[in-house]
Amino acid sequence: MQYVTAYYPEYFDKSEWDRDFSLIREAGFAAVRFGEFAWSQMEPEEGVFDFAAIDAWIDAADRHGLKVILCTPTACPPIWLCEKHPDILPVDIRGRRTRFGARQHRCYNSPAYLEASRRIVTALAERYGADPRIAAWQIDNELCGEQKKCYCDHCRAAFQEYLKGKYAGIGELNRRWGGHFWSEDYQRFDQIETPRLFAMDLCIWENPSFGLEYIRFSSDSIVRFCDMQAEILHRYTKVPVTTNTDDFYFGDTLDLYKLFKNLDVASFDCYHEQEYIFAFYCDFLRGVRGDGKFWVMENGDGSKLLGDMMDIAEERGCTQYSVFKFRPFPWGQEQSRTSLIDLYGRPMPNYETVRRHAARTEPLPQLAPRVGLLYDFDSSWAHNAKSLMLDCRDGLWYPNYLLHTVYRAVYEQGESAEVIRPDCAAPDSLPVVLAPRCILHDEALERELLRYVENGGTLVIDTDFMVKNKDNVFRDTGGEFYGKVYAAFGGLPFLSAEDAPRTVGFGKGKVVMADRELSLDGWKALLSELLD
Amino acid sequence: MQYVTAYYPEYFDKSEWDRDFSLIREAGFAAVRFGEFAWSQMEPEEGVFDFAAIDAWIDAADRHGLKVILCTPTACPPIWLCEKHPDILPVDIRGRRTRFGARQHRCYNSPAYLEASRRIVTALAERYGADPRIAAWQIDNELCGEQKKCYCDHCRAAFQEYLKGKYAGIGELNRRWGGHFWSEDYQRFDQIETPRLFAMDLCIWENPSFGLEYIRFSSDSIVRFCDMQAEILHRYTKVPVTTNTDDFYFGDTLDLYKLFKNLDVASFDCYHEQEYIFAFYCDFLRGVRGDGKFWVMENGDGSKLLGDMMDIAEERGCTQYSVFKFRPFPWGQEQSRTSLIDLYGRPMPNYETVRRHAARTEPLPQLAPRVGLLYDFDSSWAHNAKSLMLDCRDGLWYPNYLLHTVYRAVYEQGESAEVIRPDCAAPDSLPVVLAPRCILHDEALERELLRYVENGGTLVIDTDFMVKNKDNVFRDTGGEFYGKVYAAFGGLPFLSAEDAPRTVGFGKGKVVMADRELSLDGWKALLSELLD
Amino acid sequence: MQYVTAYYPEYFDKSEWDRDFSLIREAGFAAVRFGEFAWSQMEPEEGVFDFAAIDAWIDAADRHGLKVILCTPTACPPIWLCEKHPDILPVDIRGRRTRFGARQHRCYNSPAYLEASRRIVTALAERYGADPRIAAWQIDNELCGEQKKCYCDHCRAAFQEYLKGKYAGIGELNRRWGGHFWSEDYQRFDQIETPRLFAMDLCIWENPSFGLEYIRFSSDSIVRFCDMQAEILHRYTKVPVTTNTDDFYFGDTLDLYKLFKNLDVASFDCYHEQEYIFAFYCDFLRGVRGDGKFWVMENGDGSKLLGDMMDIAEERGCTQYSVFKFRPFPWGQEQSRTSLIDLYGRPMPNYETVRRHAARTEPLPQLAPRVGLLYDFDSSWAHNAKSLMLDCRDGLWYPNYLLHTVYRAVYEQGESAEVIRPDCAAPDSLPVVLAPRCILHDEALERELLRYVENGGTLVIDTDFMVKNKDNVFRDTGGEFYGKVYAAFGGLPFLSAEDAPRTVGFGKGKVVMADRELSLDGWKALLSELLD
Repeated sequence: MQYVTAYYPEYFDKSEWDRDFSLIREAGFAAVRFGEFAWSQMEPEEGVFDFAAIDAWIDAADRHGLKVILCTPTACPPIWLCEKHPDILPVDIRGRRTRFGARQHRCYNSPAYLEASRRIVTALAERYGADPRIAAWQIDNELCGEQKKCYCDHCRAAFQEYLKGKYAGIGELNRRWGGHFWSEDYQRFDQIETPRLFAMDLCIWENPSFGLEYIRFSSDSIVRFCDMQAEILHRYTKVPVTTNTDDFYFGDTLDLYKLFKNLDVASFDCYHEQEYIFAFYCDFLRGVRGDGKFWVMENGDGSKLLGDMMDIAEERGCTQYSVFKFRPFPWGQEQSRTSLIDLYGRPMPNYETVRRHAARTEPLPQLAPRVGLLYDFDSSWAHNAKSLMLDCRDGLWYPNYLLHTVYRAVYEQGESAEVIRPDCAAPDSLPVVLAPRCILHDEALERELLRYVENGGTLVIDTDFMVKNKDNVFRDTGGEFYGKVYAAFGGLPFLSAEDAPRTVGFGKGKVVMADRELSLDGWKALLSELLD
Repeated sequence: MQYVTAYYPEYFDKSEWDRDFSLIREAGFAAVRFGEFAWSQMEPEEGVFDFAAIDAWIDAADRHGLKVILCTPTACPPIWLCEKHPDILPVDIRGRRTRFGARQHRCYNSPAYLEASRRIVTALAERYGADPRIAAWQIDNELCGEQKKCYCDHCRAAFQEYLKGKYAGIGELNRRWGGHFWSEDYQRFDQIETPRLFAMDLCIWENPSFGLEYIRFSSDSIVRFCDMQAEILHRYTKVPVTTNTDDFYFGDTLDLYKLFKNLDVASFDCYHEQEYIFAFYCDFLRGVRGDGKFWVMENGDGSKLLGDMMDIAEERGCTQYSVFKFRPFPWGQEQSRTSLIDLYGRPMPNYETVRRHAARTEPLPQLAPRVGLLYDFDSSWAHNAKSLMLDCRDGLWYPNYLLHTVYRAVYEQGESAEVIRPDCAAPDSLPVVLAPRCILHDEALERELLRYVENGGTLVIDTDFMVKNKDNVFRDTGGEFYGKVYAAFGGLPFLSAEDAPRTVGFGKGKVVMADRELSLDGWKALLSELLD
Repeated sequence: MQYVTAYYPEYFDKSEWDRDFSLIREAGFAAVRFGEFAWSQMEPEEGVFDFAAIDAWIDAADRHGLKVILCTPTACPPIWLCEKHPDILPVDIRGRRTRFGARQHRCYNSPAYLEASRRIVTALAERYGADPRIAAWQIDNELCGEQKKCYCDHCRAAFQEYLKGKYAGIGELNRRWGGHFWSEDYQRFDQIETPRLFAMDLCIWENPSFGLEYIRFSSDSIVRFCDMQAEILHRYTKVPVTTNTDDFYFGDTLDLYKLFKNLDVASFDCYHEQEYIFAFYCDFLRGVRGDGKFWVMENGDGSKLLGDMMDIAEERGCTQYSVFKFRPFPWGQEQSRTSLIDLYGRPMPNYETVRRHAARTEPLPQLAPRVGLLYDFDSSWAHNAKSLMLDCRDGLWYPNYLLHTVYRAVYEQGESAEVIRPDCAAPDSLPVVLAPRCILHDEALERELLRYVENGGTLVIDTDFMVKNKDNVFRDTGGEFYGKVYAAFGGLPFLSAEDAPRTVGFGKGKVVMADRELSLDGWKALLSELLD
């Protein structure tokens, strides 16, 4: 595993770079990451590029034998761009446009933002794409982090186009969404608004089909934005291109499978201080592209568990571990007194943690997961679309359950998990595959899971299992439609799982029906039984 | 007691209607209710009526011997109406206009909405008013449900007219509201705005006289809207016309006495799972029109207490009990898996509950209340107008106390209550009348309560009793003004009730002074003593 | 100590004034306060003054030998002013303009409001400045009370001017604020907006340098408004001019040192029912102008501790104690049933409390503080500017700690405190000076504190001590920069105070390093040790 750290030369006096890069090198880091917020430095005025500073940073790193992970700076559109094109700034769920002064203040569907992003990424790629000192590229920063959805007119128009492309006509949309319920039928696509919050006094949520489509649309908008950057970078560079995805603390409304599809490696940021949480994201990211590899892009300099987390990551296939951040920022929204070094350049305890790990020559043995965990963004969003989403912490019913109950049980049983993507095979080598709260029906997935069971696997489902279609609508055509699974449970036993897990044999394997609220201890007991 | 269920033919394939209606009939239901959200079906474009679907539903029901409760669909103005007249959509307390996509998205004072409502109700009444298969009519659905007040320009203008009609001039308004307090005097009625929320940082509430008038105005707006529909329906039909009022969970800011005055029967919806709560609404609704009858219009298909609730209702004079809903909705905001039958047509346990009750031939004996409970909306709102009302659950101090403390004590002592309307007689046949938190003074009511006491009754009041006038202003002209009641307590003993209930004799009866915060147990003890 | 009470003649019938003033006089009050909300009476239309009512009030008070504290009415701009100039109404943190109907509905930077305030204050001062019946003047009421900051266009323009006057250029501002962090550099001052809340979904706070400057700007705007009134009043009167500052319950974002600088006496309002809280404000206000005197301007008529509070105030140097309010208001936002008398004119228990205290002839002995407590508004705001400030109770980390932990320990050890202003001397006579959470570096203050220590004093600091500069940025130039204090602690020991208080000798005195989260008991133990 290789070690990297984020370092921001622009924040410190040039005279201190050599001291800092020396310390970085001495700790055993192989590369530094920078640039992800530096748009105003790279392009101080519209169309005026100035890469002198970037050149100097790369030169300085190179003098100390450090490679560079260079980031595109698109998470922070500068003031000149926001001033000229206020429609870049996203509109929130109450219909208020945000203002300049934070970060991620961009609508992913704003033409001016897309154009300006294309321009700065192209300029960067042209200049540094072939530079041998660049080890990798990071696109943007924590896409879909704090700012998950926008409700502006650009999004409204794009959402209408999205719907037009997906539904044969407005009649089909009405029919599939149940538009006659509450007289919500539309006559034309251009009558459909973004799902801004209803009136303050109205304790009413969105039509769940509508809500689910808007989450999909929002996720797709971000993926398209990332793909646009990847396409440009891939034209100019041969080194890996990634993006650092955020954890699910504020929600999982970005489809990570799609996000990393056209990138070269998956990577993530995580700041939680519990080992099972960190392990979950490692297992998840390893499976996200199906290549068994991933990077940690940001992990806490001040974590008491930094060493443990490095082990957790390495055992799970991490090939590059980046610590955020090497030196504290004296000002700005993330100001602090300490990082790997303190404000005055003195190494802090985790500096030594890194040095010790980087000096290890024996790689850690890789874990061999025995448990598959199906993570289906669509099912998560289907649950999410039922909730009010009054703030950014709502709608986490699915990811919180899969992480803090199901995965935690896996971890505490001493196991790791292989994440099963809904469009991938469930490997026969896994004795157990868990599919909790997998509420949306997918024919190919159903077929694949049956195949896995018939070949000898054990599949754990619950009473949610595929009871809705992709429109977030309950499937209502009766028992035979559900195929063999429910038939085996005696028809339609999905209304409750009153008796503790019941098992039905299928070919060489079996299906276990769990309660959809099964507790942490319940999962641990079940896993213990199934893996014995 | 007759049984009814809500069934929505438009949500299911025509081929399934016969199966469903058969099941409905077999359970013992005499009628089905439908139509209350079907405006877009009845009038798919402005002025284009299409009742073919309604005809087909009525025909199908009729084929199975089922009568119909037909609803006016005004709770869900269709997209074409909202698009053409965005001023139909209500404005919330923060000044934001809501959007299409939920329900109850209508300002009761919007001219375009009133006109369109008049048109569709007239068309419905013309077509079905004399149809012998229609057993009753329901106006709208849960008027003043989630959407209680609007703050738009139409409401502003209407509120100003309301005030002009009530106050001799702006000077009188200033004087009665205490306008010189905080220099809040107005010069003209047209300077008065709707009581939208002040600035976010301002922890300040509205002038309580102003606040109370806006609640009254909002309630009157809804009553006027309902009366308008009733007037149309009564021109065309002879069967009972009602509306299904919501319980007080989100507030009691609709005067039910006025609401049901021009209707033919009172009915309500209730989804709570505690018996005393359901019993409260039954007792309340029985008294609301003074005719001793009421209907339950919606009660939960999934309730574990459905059978008990049917008994509670019947014992209290309910003549028609409607279960919401027969079959689950696969999509939309109220999607679920089960109702009286499940998504696949299988009867659920409550199907049998209904069947068993409907098959009973002996009516249950009627309860004879011994306790009168004065419920005064004006007093409730006077308390409400003191609170910040930041969300729709605030301002429930009065209804929550009367329901969860006072009435609960009545219920748990094995009694039922007769609701006393402030404009009605307190029957001498009741040994005890409770008037807690009755803060607004009403001369006729005061006189009637004294008469009741002098004739031998026991009246329980508290230190709030009639200490404010109808302007929500403390009456400050001294002891004699309060007449005999306070005089009997030694002048003005209303500042606190430090000693447990004190009793003063009056003619043949007595008045008991209770603490305004008397606990559940306190009320039970008091009732036990008074009813012994 | 002299006694005063607030009495509002305009709220009651003229025929009752004599009774009320007699009761006031009999209780021992020497003066009444009125006028602070009576703008609409004094100027019923723009430019039309009517002081007949005020004349009558003063006459009536004078007939009973009562002096008058006359207030300027600027906290309540009348409807005619708000209607003509809606830009007087402040804009909240979400960008919504408030409306008429509460109080404090004024932007301190609105030209129309400033002009109208100047006019009414001048008219009042001309008429009553030399009137011998006026004992003192109160400017406005609870400046910066519920309404702390405004975000309107006037404020935006004024804030830009404030910044232009303070920073040599936009480049300097960018450099000092760390503008390159998150690409937040500005190109021109006129690009800087007011720090309205970002989008609802964005869990992101303001740049802390920006945030601190906006608090300073907002405080300065209020101080300037108060100074404007003081300057007018001082031209016409020789009696003391004050303003009644609010306690810190909703925040301390008004610099009381600056507020009272150009006034003649400090005074405050406080409604808390705990003795140490009241004592804190007394100690604070005594020190705020450095003259050892202060007035209590409002304290609760219904307080169970009124007598104790009068003692607490008198022992601390209070020379005038005003009880709010003599008679209850029947209507309006502050309606109630009881004050010193009840609604019907009957004396309540605290009427007797006042009478007893006012009749005392022996003044209480004055407390001699042994503890100095540094209260630095700038340091408080620096902490505040780190927080989200989603509502008006946020951002209280500093004042709450200094009041509820540090001062409370002082009080419970039986001590009183002398408030140390950052621009004043730390008296050598105090054995101990506490400087908790004093995070902003001030060279003069640092020098003064060292002088105090070297002369024999004991200074208690914590790990926050002066680690940031006045821009709210961590000072990062190393150990020697911090001068003798940190050097004495072995260089830079400010990252944590792991071992309980450590002491370093300095000249004849010593510095104690406390934990920045030291508990109430910890402070009590420390004080007990240091004061022994």
